[in-house]
Amino acid sequence: MTDEKATNVTWHNHQITREDRQKLNGHRGAVLWFTGLSGCGKSTIANAVDQLLHRQGVHTFVLDGDNIRMGLNRNLGFSPEDRTENIRRIGEVAKLFADAATIVSSAFISPYAADRELVRALLPEGTFVEILVQASLETCEARDPKGLYRKARAGEISDFTGIDAPYEAPESPEIVLDSDTKGVEELANEVIAWLKANDILPA
Amino acid sequence: MTDEKATNVTWHNHQITREDRQKLNGHRGAVLWFTGLSGCGKSTIANAVDQLLHRQGVHTFVLDGDNIRMGLNRNLGFSPEDRTENIRRIGEVAKLFADAATIVSSAFISPYAADRELVRALLPEGTFVEILVQASLETCEARDPKGLYRKARAGEISDFTGIDAPYEAPESPEIVLDSDTKGVEELANEVIAWLKANDILPA
Repeated sequence: MTDEKATNVTWHNHQITREDRQKLNGHRGAVLWFTGLSGCGKSTIANAVDQLLHRQGVHTFVLDGDNIRMGLNRNLGFSPEDRTENIRRIGEVAKLFADAATIVSSAFISPYAADRELVRALLPEGTFVEILVQASLETCEARDPKGLYRKARAGEISDFTGIDAPYEAPESPEIVLDSDTKGVEELANEVIAWLKANDILPA
Repeated sequence: MTDEKATNVTWHNHQITREDRQKLNGHRGAVLWFTGLSGCGKSTIANAVDQLLHRQGVHTFVLDGDNIRMGLNRNLGFSPEDRTENIRRIGEVAKLFADAATIVSSAFISPYAADRELVRALLPEGTFVEILVQASLETCEARDPKGLYRKARAGEISDFTGIDAPYEAPESPEIVLDSDTKGVEELANEVIAWLKANDILPA
């Protein structure tokens, strides 16, 4: 069946539905898709949102570049093809978590608009929340929390987003966070407010 | 960074821990790994367990051959290499769900012992529950819910577990379910009883 690539399968619904799980959890499942340059604050803000939601009894999880890269996507590199496959797999996993009535945050550079649109297309209308974490390259490079910009400038690593690989900013993200001028807690609260205003969380 | 394969990343803990999520949910996270021949009842029993647990307020999810094959693993076929990668990815996803304090059931043939052992090794001691769904080839072939045995016998598909591909039964699974002689509900209750006796669920 090698060449058939999963043609002998058909979708069938779980007996317990997404709606059942949402009822148990008291809120909808959704994907908070943080995107932006390395060092813009995606992971920090995603974890802050996660912490605030968890304290309110919301069922949450964080998919994060570092831990996914050590696990599910450890056999992928940083070529355009591998980046696309990286985001595809993360999108499919995020979809499963949303089906489980979890509010799952993903914090990946996810530089290609087309890849993010594929993830959006996987999810029910209104449950993919694209969050642009906006920070100038100068800000990100000055922070350089992992020392990657320094390595990229020194030519020790290549295909680095913002240096020698493109970042395609979303044209109409659900939320834009200004990470140049605002702090983590303020930005996290902006996300929570949006979730309440848009019926992901009870108001 | 193409050739570096994720060397620029290090593990970092989520701010909200597995213990925090377990406290919110009121039970541990765990992986119920159902394994057995096609048609042995894995998916049916996994869904029955899921339903019983959900009714008790347990946070659950089901990863299932058909829906994973339509999503995360749609780019994999049925060669030995692809089967191994299939199970590896499912194991990594199951680990994420267990980290999220979910009791996640996976229902895949997962014919290779080594692949299952790799998944076991991903998970904290005592949270990987290997469940052999035991049914004779004759029983499975007589049921043939998807008509796959018929196709395999007719030579329309190859590498079919039990016909022209091996099934390596677990040597010391946590649970053995006798699907030849017992019904779905009885077997599902055996699983629930085991979870209570082994501190996955409160007794």
